[in-house]
Amino acid sequence: MQQAIAILDSGVGGLTVAKEIMRQLPQEKILYFGDTARAPYGPRDAEEVITFTHQIVDYLLQYQPKMIVIACNTATAVAIEEIRARLPVPVVGVIHPGARAAIKSTRNQFVGVIGTEGTIRSGAYEQALRQISPQIQVVSMACPQFVPLVERGQFRADRTTQIVADTLESLSSVPLDCLILGCTHYPFLSDAIAQAMGPNVKLISSADETAREVSTILYHKGMLAKSPVIPVHQFFCSGDPVMFRMIAQSWLNEQIRVTPVVWQVPNII
Amino acid sequence: MQQAIAILDSGVGGLTVAKEIMRQLPQEKILYFGDTARAPYGPRDAEEVITFTHQIVDYLLQYQPKMIVIACNTATAVAIEEIRARLPVPVVGVIHPGARAAIKSTRNQFVGVIGTEGTIRSGAYEQALRQISPQIQVVSMACPQFVPLVERGQFRADRTTQIVADTLESLSSVPLDCLILGCTHYPFLSDAIAQAMGPNVKLISSADETAREVSTILYHKGMLAKSPVIPVHQFFCSGDPVMFRMIAQSWLNEQIRVTPVVWQVPNII
Repeated sequence: MQQAIAILDSGVGGLTVAKEIMRQLPQEKILYFGDTARAPYGPRDAEEVITFTHQIVDYLLQYQPKMIVIACNTATAVAIEEIRARLPVPVVGVIHPGARAAIKSTRNQFVGVIGTEGTIRSGAYEQALRQISPQIQVVSMACPQFVPLVERGQFRADRTTQIVADTLESLSSVPLDCLILGCTHYPFLSDAIAQAMGPNVKLISSADETAREVSTILYHKGMLAKSPVIPVHQFFCSGDPVMFRMIAQSWLNEQIRVTPVVWQVPNII
Repeated sequence: MQQAIAILDSGVGGLTVAKEIMRQLPQEKILYFGDTARAPYGPRDAEEVITFTHQIVDYLLQYQPKMIVIACNTATAVAIEEIRARLPVPVVGVIHPGARAAIKSTRNQFVGVIGTEGTIRSGAYEQALRQISPQIQVVSMACPQFVPLVERGQFRADRTTQIVADTLESLSSVPLDCLILGCTHYPFLSDAIAQAMGPNVKLISSADETAREVSTILYHKGMLAKSPVIPVHQFFCSGDPVMFRMIAQSWLNEQIRVTPVVWQVPNII
Protein backbone atom coordinates (compact mmCIF):
# COMPACT_ATOMS: atom_id res chain seq x y z
CA MET A 1 0.00 0.00 0.00
CA GLN A 2 1.30 3.44 -0.92
CA GLN A 3 1.07 5.77 2.07
CA ALA A 4 -0.70 9.01 1.19
CA ILE A 5 -0.26 12.69 1.96
CA ALA A 6 -3.43 13.74 3.82
CA ILE A 7 -4.61 17.29 3.16
CA LEU A 8 -7.38 19.00 5.09
CA ASP A 9 -9.22 22.26 4.70
CA SER A 10 -12.40 24.00 5.78
CA GLY A 11 -13.72 23.47 2.26
CA VAL A 12 -12.44 23.72 -1.30
CA GLY A 13 -9.54 26.15 -0.65
CA GLY A 14 -7.05 23.42 0.13
CA LEU A 15 -7.58 22.10 -3.39
CA THR A 16 -5.13 24.81 -4.47
CA VAL A 17 -2.53 23.08 -2.27
CA ALA A 18 -3.61 19.62 -3.49
CA LYS A 19 -3.31 20.66 -7.14
CA GLU A 20 0.21 22.00 -6.60
CA ILE A 21 1.27 18.86 -4.71
CA MET A 22 -0.11 16.75 -7.57
CA ARG A 23 1.87 18.87 -10.06
CA GLN A 24 5.13 19.09 -8.11
CA LEU A 25 5.00 15.52 -6.76
CA PRO A 26 3.15 13.55 -9.44
CA GLN A 27 3.94 10.17 -7.85
CA GLU A 28 2.37 10.95 -4.48
CA LYS A 29 -1.10 9.74 -3.49
CA ILE A 30 -3.39 12.40 -1.99
CA LEU A 31 -6.23 12.08 0.53
CA TYR A 32 -8.23 15.30 0.64
CA PHE A 33 -10.79 16.30 3.24
CA GLY A 34 -12.94 19.42 2.75
CA ASP A 35 -15.07 20.31 5.76
CA THR A 36 -17.61 22.07 3.53
CA ALA A 37 -20.49 21.55 5.98
CA ARG A 38 -18.76 23.93 8.40
CA ALA A 39 -16.94 26.35 6.04
CA PRO A 40 -15.93 29.09 6.37
CA TYR A 41 -13.65 28.71 9.40
CA GLY A 42 -12.50 32.35 9.24
CA PRO A 43 -15.26 33.88 11.40
CA ARG A 44 -15.25 31.04 14.00
CA ASP A 45 -13.48 31.34 17.31
CA ALA A 46 -10.14 29.60 17.79
CA GLU A 47 -11.39 26.88 20.13
CA GLU A 48 -14.00 25.71 17.64
CA VAL A 49 -11.48 25.62 14.79
CA ILE A 50 -9.09 23.60 16.96
CA THR A 51 -11.84 21.07 17.77
CA PHE A 52 -12.78 20.70 14.10
CA THR A 53 -9.16 20.27 13.05
CA HIS A 54 -8.53 17.50 15.58
CA GLN A 55 -11.70 15.77 14.41
CA ILE A 56 -10.69 15.79 10.73
CA VAL A 57 -7.16 14.68 11.56
CA ASP A 58 -8.60 11.75 13.54
CA TYR A 59 -10.78 10.82 10.57
CA LEU A 60 -7.79 10.90 8.19
CA LEU A 61 -5.52 8.91 10.53
CA GLN A 62 -7.55 5.74 9.84
CA TYR A 63 -5.91 5.75 6.38
CA GLN A 64 -2.40 5.85 7.91
CA PRO A 65 -1.08 8.85 5.97
CA LYS A 66 2.67 9.54 5.98
CA MET A 67 2.16 13.28 6.38
CA ILE A 68 -0.63 15.69 7.33
CA VAL A 69 -0.95 19.02 5.51
CA ILE A 70 -3.18 21.57 7.22
CA ALA A 71 -4.09 23.40 4.02
CA CYS A 72 -6.19 26.03 5.79
CA ASN A 73 -4.50 29.16 7.09
CA THR A 74 -7.11 29.68 9.82
CA ALA A 75 -6.60 26.15 11.16
CA THR A 76 -2.81 26.39 10.80
CA ALA A 77 -2.79 29.64 12.76
CA VAL A 78 -4.56 28.21 15.80
CA ALA A 79 -4.12 24.43 15.74
CA ILE A 80 -0.83 23.34 14.15
CA GLU A 81 1.29 23.26 17.31
CA GLU A 82 -1.19 20.97 19.10
CA ILE A 83 -1.63 18.70 16.09
CA ARG A 84 2.14 18.49 15.53
CA ALA A 85 2.75 17.66 19.18
CA ARG A 86 0.37 14.71 19.21
CA LEU A 87 1.14 13.04 15.86
CA PRO A 88 4.04 10.74 14.95
CA VAL A 89 4.06 11.88 11.28
CA PRO A 90 5.28 15.27 9.94
CA VAL A 91 2.63 18.01 10.02
CA VAL A 92 2.99 20.87 7.54
CA GLY A 93 0.97 24.08 7.71
CA VAL A 94 0.51 26.82 5.14
CA ILE A 95 1.72 29.88 7.05
CA HIS A 96 5.48 29.41 7.41
CA PRO A 97 6.01 28.38 3.75
CA GLY A 98 4.30 31.59 2.58
CA ALA A 99 6.29 33.65 5.09
CA ARG A 100 9.59 32.13 3.94
CA ALA A 101 8.73 32.74 0.28
CA ALA A 102 7.91 36.40 1.08
CA ILE A 103 11.25 36.83 2.85
CA LYS A 104 13.00 35.36 -0.19
CA SER A 105 11.01 37.58 -2.56
CA THR A 106 10.87 41.00 -0.92
CA ARG A 107 13.53 43.57 -1.77
CA ASN A 108 12.05 46.58 0.04
CA GLN A 109 11.02 44.71 3.23
CA PHE A 110 7.33 45.69 2.86
CA VAL A 111 5.19 42.56 2.85
CA GLY A 112 1.39 42.46 2.62
CA VAL A 113 -0.80 39.66 3.94
CA ILE A 114 -4.47 39.06 3.17
CA GLY A 115 -6.45 36.32 4.89
CA THR A 116 -9.58 35.46 6.85
CA GLU A 117 -10.51 37.29 10.05
CA GLY A 118 -9.27 34.32 12.08
CA THR A 119 -5.87 34.24 10.38
CA ILE A 120 -5.31 37.99 10.50
CA ARG A 121 -6.52 38.26 14.11
CA SER A 122 -4.07 35.52 15.15
CA GLY A 123 -1.08 37.57 13.94
CA ALA A 124 0.47 34.28 12.78
CA TYR A 125 2.06 35.73 9.63
CA GLU A 126 3.59 38.71 11.44
CA GLN A 127 5.00 36.31 14.00
CA ALA A 128 6.39 33.92 11.37
CA LEU A 129 7.93 36.78 9.37
CA ARG A 130 9.42 38.66 12.32
CA GLN A 131 10.75 35.54 14.01
CA ILE A 132 13.02 35.08 11.01
CA SER A 133 13.54 38.66 9.82
CA PRO A 134 12.74 41.29 12.49
CA GLN A 135 13.11 44.32 10.19
CA ILE A 136 10.27 43.32 7.86
CA GLN A 137 7.25 45.64 7.76
CA VAL A 138 3.98 43.74 7.58
CA VAL A 139 0.65 45.18 6.46
CA SER A 140 -2.22 42.75 6.91
CA MET A 141 -5.91 42.86 6.02
CA ALA A 142 -8.83 40.50 6.53
CA CYS A 143 -10.99 39.89 3.44
CA PRO A 144 -14.07 38.13 4.85
CA GLN A 145 -16.00 38.29 1.58
CA PHE A 146 -13.55 36.19 -0.45
CA VAL A 147 -14.02 32.64 0.93
CA PRO A 148 -17.83 32.53 0.55
CA LEU A 149 -17.48 33.60 -3.11
CA VAL A 150 -15.15 30.66 -3.77
CA GLU A 151 -17.21 28.14 -1.77
CA ARG A 152 -20.27 29.13 -3.87
CA GLY A 153 -18.27 28.50 -7.05
CA GLN A 154 -18.48 32.16 -8.11
CA PHE A 155 -14.74 32.66 -8.56
CA ARG A 156 -14.96 33.62 -12.24
CA ALA A 157 -17.91 36.05 -12.03
CA ASP A 158 -17.60 39.75 -12.99
CA ARG A 159 -19.14 40.77 -9.69
CA THR A 160 -16.35 38.87 -7.91
CA THR A 161 -13.66 40.86 -9.76
CA GLN A 162 -15.34 44.06 -8.59
CA ILE A 163 -15.57 42.92 -4.97
CA VAL A 164 -11.90 41.96 -5.01
CA ALA A 165 -10.87 45.32 -6.50
CA ASP A 166 -12.96 47.29 -3.98
CA THR A 167 -11.64 45.26 -1.03
CA LEU A 168 -7.98 45.63 -1.95
CA GLU A 169 -8.12 49.31 -2.87
CA SER A 170 -6.93 50.46 0.54
CA LEU A 171 -3.65 48.52 0.09
CA SER A 172 -2.70 50.67 -2.91
CA SER A 173 -1.23 53.38 -0.68
CA VAL A 174 1.33 50.98 0.86
CA PRO A 175 4.63 50.39 -1.00
CA LEU A 176 4.34 46.58 -0.94
CA ASP A 177 6.51 44.57 -3.28
CA CYS A 178 4.86 41.28 -2.42
CA LEU A 179 1.49 40.13 -1.11
CA ILE A 180 0.96 36.80 0.61
CA LEU A 181 -2.33 35.12 -0.33
CA GLY A 182 -2.76 34.01 3.26
CA CYS A 183 -5.78 31.83 2.59
CA THR A 184 -5.73 28.77 0.38
CA HIS A 185 -9.02 29.83 -1.22
CA TYR A 186 -7.43 32.96 -2.68
CA PRO A 187 -5.54 31.40 -5.61
CA PHE A 188 -9.05 30.80 -7.08
CA LEU A 189 -9.22 34.62 -7.22
CA SER A 190 -5.61 35.25 -8.23
CA ASP A 191 -6.37 36.85 -11.61
CA ALA A 192 -8.64 39.41 -9.94
CA ILE A 193 -6.15 39.98 -7.10
CA ALA A 194 -3.23 40.44 -9.54
CA GLN A 195 -5.29 42.93 -11.54
CA ALA A 196 -6.18 44.88 -8.39
CA MET A 197 -2.60 44.99 -7.06
CA GLY A 198 -0.87 45.85 -10.35
CA PRO A 199 2.32 44.51 -11.91
CA ASN A 200 4.76 45.68 -9.22
CA VAL A 201 3.38 43.46 -6.46
CA LYS A 202 4.37 39.82 -6.61
CA LEU A 203 1.65 37.47 -5.35
CA ILE A 204 2.84 34.68 -3.09
CA SER A 205 0.56 31.68 -2.98
CA SER A 206 0.80 29.80 0.27
CA ALA A 207 -0.54 26.85 -1.75
CA ASP A 208 2.38 26.72 -4.21
CA GLU A 209 4.95 27.32 -1.48
CA THR A 210 3.49 24.67 0.79
CA ALA A 211 3.68 22.08 -1.99
CA ARG A 212 7.37 22.89 -2.41
CA GLU A 213 7.98 22.48 1.33
CA VAL A 214 6.09 19.18 1.39
CA SER A 215 8.57 18.04 -1.26
CA THR A 216 11.54 19.31 0.78
CA ILE A 217 10.44 17.61 3.97
CA LEU A 218 9.57 14.28 2.36
CA TYR A 219 13.00 14.30 0.69
CA HIS A 220 14.90 15.09 3.88
CA LYS A 221 13.02 12.37 5.75
CA GLY A 222 13.56 9.81 2.97
CA MET A 223 9.78 9.51 2.53
CA LEU A 224 9.24 10.38 -1.15
CA ALA A 225 7.15 7.87 -3.14
CA LYS A 226 9.54 5.57 -4.95
CA SER A 227 7.51 3.56 -7.44
CA PRO A 228 6.59 5.29 -10.72
CA VAL A 229 2.87 4.39 -10.49
CA ILE A 230 0.06 6.82 -11.20
CA PRO A 231 -1.59 7.36 -7.82
CA VAL A 232 -5.35 7.22 -7.28
CA HIS A 233 -6.39 10.14 -5.09
CA GLN A 234 -9.33 10.12 -2.66
CA PHE A 235 -11.63 13.02 -1.76
CA PHE A 236 -13.93 13.41 1.23
CA CYS A 237 -16.30 16.22 2.10
CA SER A 238 -18.71 16.85 4.94
CA GLY A 239 -21.17 19.01 2.98
CA ASP A 240 -22.84 18.80 -0.43
CA PRO A 241 -20.72 16.36 -2.51
CA VAL A 242 -22.22 17.57 -5.80
CA MET A 243 -21.10 21.17 -5.27
CA PHE A 244 -17.70 19.98 -3.97
CA ARG A 245 -17.16 17.76 -7.01
CA MET A 246 -18.18 20.50 -9.42
CA ILE A 247 -15.67 22.97 -7.94
CA ALA A 248 -12.91 20.38 -7.53
CA GLN A 249 -13.20 19.08 -11.10
CA SER A 250 -13.22 22.60 -12.48
CA TRP A 251 -10.06 23.50 -10.49
CA LEU A 252 -8.16 20.23 -10.94
CA ASN A 253 -9.21 19.63 -14.57
CA GLU A 254 -9.89 15.99 -13.88
CA GLN A 255 -12.74 13.68 -12.93
CA ILE A 256 -12.82 12.71 -9.27
CA ARG A 257 -14.96 10.62 -6.92
CA VAL A 258 -16.11 12.19 -3.67
CA THR A 259 -16.97 10.26 -0.50
CA PRO A 260 -19.47 12.15 1.67
CA VAL A 261 -18.75 12.13 5.41
CA VAL A 262 -21.49 12.85 7.93
CA TRP A 263 -20.20 14.04 11.30
CA GLN A 264 -21.50 11.81 14.10
CA VAL A 265 -20.76 14.34 16.85
CA PRO A 266 -23.71 16.75 16.74
CA ASN A 267 -22.67 18.83 19.76
CA ILE A 268 -19.57 20.34 18.16
CA ILE A 269 -21.22 22.24 15.33
CA MET B 1 27.49 30.87 22.26
CA GLN B 2 25.35 31.09 19.15
CA GLN B 3 25.74 27.96 17.04
CA ALA B 4 26.56 28.79 13.44
CA ILE B 5 25.57 27.52 10.02
CA ALA B 6 28.79 26.24 8.42
CA ILE B 7 29.05 26.70 4.66
CA LEU B 8 31.77 25.20 2.52
CA ASP B 9 32.77 25.55 -1.10
CA SER B 10 35.68 24.93 -3.43
CA GLY B 11 36.26 28.69 -3.44
CA VAL B 12 34.18 31.87 -3.66
CA GLY B 13 31.09 30.35 -5.34
CA GLY B 14 29.45 29.42 -2.07
CA LEU B 15 29.43 33.12 -1.15
CA THR B 16 26.29 33.33 -3.31
CA VAL B 17 24.66 30.87 -0.89
CA ALA B 18 26.11 32.68 2.13
CA LYS B 19 24.80 36.05 0.93
CA GLU B 20 21.30 34.65 0.47
CA ILE B 21 21.35 32.96 3.88
CA MET B 22 22.45 36.26 5.43
CA ARG B 23 19.59 38.04 3.64
CA GLN B 24 16.86 35.45 4.29
CA LEU B 25 18.02 34.58 7.82
CA PRO B 26 19.60 37.80 9.15
CA GLN B 27 19.88 36.47 12.71
CA GLU B 28 21.99 33.43 11.83
CA LYS B 29 25.75 33.34 12.31
CA ILE B 30 27.72 32.03 9.31
CA LEU B 31 31.06 30.21 9.16
CA TYR B 32 32.33 30.13 5.59
CA PHE B 33 35.16 28.01 4.23
CA GLY B 34 36.45 28.55 0.67
CA ASP B 35 38.99 25.96 -0.44
CA THR B 36 40.55 28.42 -2.88
CA ALA B 37 43.95 26.69 -2.85
CA ARG B 38 42.37 23.71 -4.59
CA ALA B 39 39.60 25.33 -6.69
CA PRO B 40 38.15 24.48 -9.11
CA TYR B 41 36.74 21.12 -8.02
CA GLY B 42 34.88 20.62 -11.31
CA PRO B 43 37.67 18.91 -13.27
CA ARG B 44 38.83 16.71 -10.33
CA ASP B 45 37.83 13.09 -9.98
CA ALA B 46 35.10 12.15 -7.51
CA GLU B 47 37.38 10.46 -4.99
CA GLU B 48 39.54 13.56 -4.61
CA VAL B 49 36.51 15.83 -4.16
CA ILE B 50 35.12 13.46 -1.51
CA THR B 51 38.45 13.55 0.40
CA PHE B 52 38.61 17.35 0.28
CA THR B 53 35.00 17.68 1.44
CA HIS B 54 35.53 15.41 4.45
CA GLN B 55 38.64 17.40 5.34
CA ILE B 56 36.84 20.77 5.28
CA VAL B 57 33.89 19.37 7.23
CA ASP B 58 36.31 18.08 9.89
CA TYR B 59 37.90 21.53 10.09
CA LEU B 60 34.52 23.22 10.52
CA LEU B 61 33.28 20.71 13.12
CA GLN B 62 35.71 22.17 15.69
CA TYR B 63 33.35 25.21 15.80
CA GLN B 64 30.34 22.98 16.61
CA PRO B 65 28.04 24.25 13.84
CA LYS B 66 24.34 23.39 14.02
CA MET B 67 24.14 22.66 10.29
CA ILE B 68 26.53 22.01 7.39
CA VAL B 69 25.74 23.45 3.96
CA ILE B 70 27.73 21.96 1.11
CA ALA B 71 27.51 25.04 -1.11
CA CYS B 72 29.35 23.43 -4.01
CA ASN B 73 27.40 21.45 -6.58
CA THR B 74 30.40 19.28 -7.47
CA ALA B 75 30.93 18.29 -3.84
CA THR B 76 27.20 17.83 -3.24
CA ALA B 77 26.96 15.54 -6.27
CA VAL B 78 29.62 13.13 -5.05
CA ALA B 79 29.95 13.54 -1.27
CA ILE B 80 26.68 14.55 0.39
CA GLU B 81 25.38 11.06 1.18
CA GLU B 82 28.62 10.09 2.96
CA ILE B 83 28.82 13.36 4.86
CA ARG B 84 25.16 13.16 5.87
CA ALA B 85 25.56 9.59 7.08
CA ARG B 86 28.44 10.40 9.42
CA LEU B 87 27.29 13.70 10.98
CA PRO B 88 24.79 14.25 13.79
CA VAL B 89 23.73 17.68 12.42
CA PRO B 90 21.58 18.35 9.32
CA VAL B 91 23.54 18.48 6.07
CA VAL B 92 22.07 20.47 3.19
CA GLY B 93 23.37 20.34 -0.37
CA VAL B 94 22.67 22.61 -3.32
CA ILE B 95 21.33 20.15 -5.89
CA HIS B 96 17.92 19.09 -4.58
CA PRO B 97 16.80 22.66 -3.72
CA GLY B 98 17.51 23.76 -7.31
CA ALA B 99 15.77 20.67 -8.67
CA ARG B 100 12.67 21.30 -6.54
CA ALA B 101 12.55 24.96 -7.59
CA ALA B 102 12.77 23.94 -11.27
CA ILE B 103 9.89 21.47 -10.82
CA LYS B 104 7.84 24.24 -9.22
CA SER B 105 8.76 26.70 -11.97
CA THR B 106 8.55 24.73 -15.23
CA ARG B 107 5.32 24.72 -17.18
CA ASN B 108 6.52 22.91 -20.33
CA GLN B 109 8.60 20.24 -18.51
CA PHE B 110 11.83 21.23 -20.31
CA VAL B 111 14.51 22.04 -17.75
CA GLY B 112 18.10 23.05 -18.53
CA VAL B 113 21.06 22.53 -16.19
CA ILE B 114 24.50 24.09 -16.48
CA GLY B 115 27.33 23.13 -14.14
CA THR B 116 30.93 21.98 -13.87
CA GLU B 117 32.16 18.85 -15.64
CA GLY B 118 32.04 16.97 -12.32
CA THR B 119 28.43 17.95 -11.60
CA ILE B 120 27.16 17.28 -15.11
CA ARG B 121 29.08 13.98 -15.39
CA SER B 122 27.53 12.79 -12.11
CA GLY B 123 23.98 13.12 -13.50
CA ALA B 124 22.91 14.31 -10.05
CA TYR B 125 20.39 16.88 -11.33
CA GLU B 126 18.75 14.45 -13.77
CA GLN B 127 18.47 11.96 -10.93
CA ALA B 128 17.02 14.51 -8.47
CA LEU B 129 14.53 15.82 -11.05
CA ARG B 130 13.39 12.43 -12.35
CA GLN B 131 13.13 10.88 -8.89
CA ILE B 132 10.38 13.38 -8.16
CA SER B 133 8.89 14.02 -11.60
CA PRO B 134 9.72 11.28 -14.14
CA GLN B 135 8.23 13.07 -17.15
CA ILE B 136 10.64 16.05 -17.00
CA GLN B 137 13.02 16.49 -19.94
CA VAL B 138 16.49 17.56 -18.82
CA VAL B 139 19.12 19.15 -21.04
CA SER B 140 22.44 19.57 -19.30
CA MET B 141 25.73 21.16 -20.31
CA ALA B 142 29.11 21.56 -18.62
CA CYS B 143 30.61 25.06 -18.73
CA PRO B 144 34.22 24.53 -17.60
CA GLN B 145 35.30 28.08 -18.43
CA PHE B 146 32.93 29.79 -15.98
CA VAL B 147 34.40 28.97 -12.54
CA PRO B 148 37.98 30.12 -13.32
CA LEU B 149 36.61 33.49 -14.53
CA VAL B 150 34.85 33.99 -11.20
CA GLU B 151 37.76 32.77 -9.08
CA ARG B 152 40.00 35.30 -10.87
CA GLY B 153 37.51 38.06 -10.04
CA GLN B 154 36.72 38.71 -13.72
CA PHE B 155 32.97 38.33 -13.39
CA ARG B 156 32.17 41.83 -14.65
CA ALA B 157 34.55 41.95 -17.65
CA ASP B 158 33.29 42.38 -21.25
CA ARG B 159 35.27 39.36 -22.34
CA THR B 160 33.40 37.30 -19.74
CA THR B 161 30.01 38.31 -21.21
CA GLN B 162 31.22 37.15 -24.61
CA ILE B 163 32.49 33.81 -23.30
CA VAL B 164 29.16 33.20 -21.53
CA ALA B 165 27.18 34.06 -24.69
CA ASP B 166 29.33 31.78 -26.88
CA THR B 167 29.15 28.90 -24.41
CA LEU B 168 25.37 29.00 -24.02
CA GLU B 169 24.56 29.50 -27.70
CA SER B 170 23.95 25.81 -28.29
CA LEU B 171 21.12 25.82 -25.71
CA SER B 172 19.11 28.30 -27.80
CA SER B 173 17.65 25.52 -29.96
CA VAL B 174 16.05 23.77 -26.94
CA PRO B 175 12.59 24.99 -25.75
CA LEU B 176 13.66 25.43 -22.11
CA ASP B 177 11.47 27.51 -19.83
CA CYS B 178 13.91 27.39 -16.94
CA LEU B 179 17.64 26.93 -16.49
CA ILE B 180 19.21 25.74 -13.26
CA LEU B 181 22.47 27.52 -12.42
CA GLY B 182 23.91 24.24 -11.18
CA CYS B 183 27.08 25.77 -9.78
CA THR B 184 27.15 28.28 -6.96
CA HIS B 185 29.72 30.37 -8.85
CA TYR B 186 27.25 31.11 -11.64
CA PRO B 187 25.10 33.77 -9.90
CA PHE B 188 28.24 35.96 -10.20
CA LEU B 189 27.59 35.69 -13.97
CA SER B 190 23.79 35.86 -13.85
CA ASP B 191 23.44 39.11 -15.83
CA ALA B 192 25.47 37.65 -18.69
CA ILE B 193 23.63 34.32 -18.48
CA ALA B 194 20.21 36.03 -18.45
CA GLN B 195 21.20 38.09 -21.47
CA ALA B 196 22.38 35.00 -23.35
CA MET B 197 19.23 32.97 -22.55
CA GLY B 198 16.66 35.70 -23.24
CA PRO B 199 13.54 36.73 -21.32
CA ASN B 200 11.59 33.48 -21.73
CA VAL B 201 13.97 31.37 -19.69
CA LYS B 202 13.73 31.71 -15.93
CA LEU B 203 17.08 31.32 -14.17
CA ILE B 204 17.01 29.21 -11.03
CA SER B 205 19.82 29.92 -8.62
CA SER B 206 20.70 26.93 -6.51
CA ALA B 207 22.11 29.52 -4.07
CA ASP B 208 18.79 31.33 -3.47
CA GLU B 209 16.85 28.09 -3.28
CA THR B 210 19.28 26.49 -0.88
CA ALA B 211 19.01 29.45 1.49
CA ARG B 212 15.25 29.00 1.51
CA GLU B 213 15.59 25.30 2.30
CA VAL B 214 18.07 26.01 5.08
CA SER B 215 15.35 28.22 6.57
CA THR B 216 12.72 25.47 6.15
CA ILE B 217 14.83 22.79 7.78
CA LEU B 218 15.98 24.94 10.70
CA TYR B 219 12.33 25.85 11.34
CA HIS B 220 11.06 22.28 11.23
CA LYS B 221 13.84 21.15 13.56
CA GLY B 222 13.21 24.05 15.97
CA MET B 223 16.77 25.29 15.40
CA LEU B 224 16.29 28.88 14.17
CA ALA B 225 18.37 31.53 16.00
CA LYS B 226 16.16 33.08 18.66
CA SER B 227 17.95 36.14 19.95
CA PRO B 228 17.74 39.30 17.85
CA VAL B 229 21.50 39.95 17.90
CA ILE B 230 23.54 40.95 14.86
CA PRO B 231 25.74 37.93 14.20
CA VAL B 232 29.47 38.19 13.51
CA HIS B 233 30.35 35.93 10.61
CA GLN B 234 33.69 34.16 10.14
CA PHE B 235 35.50 33.42 6.88
CA PHE B 236 38.28 30.94 6.18
CA CYS B 237 40.17 30.24 2.99
CA SER B 238 42.97 27.89 2.04
CA GLY B 239 44.44 30.05 -0.75
CA ASP B 240 45.31 33.73 -1.16
CA PRO B 241 43.30 35.61 1.53
CA VAL B 242 43.74 38.97 -0.23
CA MET B 243 42.07 37.79 -3.44
CA PHE B 244 39.37 35.99 -1.41
CA ARG B 245 38.62 39.09 0.64
CA MET B 246 38.49 41.30 -2.42
CA ILE B 247 35.94 39.07 -4.16
CA ALA B 248 33.93 38.42 -0.97
CA GLN B 249 33.66 42.11 -0.04
CA SER B 250 32.63 43.04 -3.56
CA TRP B 251 29.91 40.36 -3.57
CA LEU B 252 28.66 40.79 0.00
CA ASN B 253 28.95 44.59 0.09
CA GLU B 254 30.50 44.49 3.53
CA GLN B 255 33.90 44.42 5.19
CA ILE B 256 35.02 40.99 6.36
CA ARG B 257 38.01 39.40 8.09
CA VAL B 258 39.52 36.29 6.54
CA THR B 259 41.43 33.60 8.44
CA PRO B 260 43.93 31.78 6.20
CA VAL B 261 44.08 28.01 6.64
CA VAL B 262 47.13 26.04 5.50
CA TRP B 263 46.41 22.37 4.89
CA GLN B 264 48.73 20.17 6.95
CA VAL B 265 48.18 17.07 4.84
CA PRO B 266 50.47 17.55 1.84
CA ASN B 267 49.79 14.19 0.22
CA ILE B 268 46.16 14.87 -0.66
CA ILE B 269 46.67 17.79 -3.01
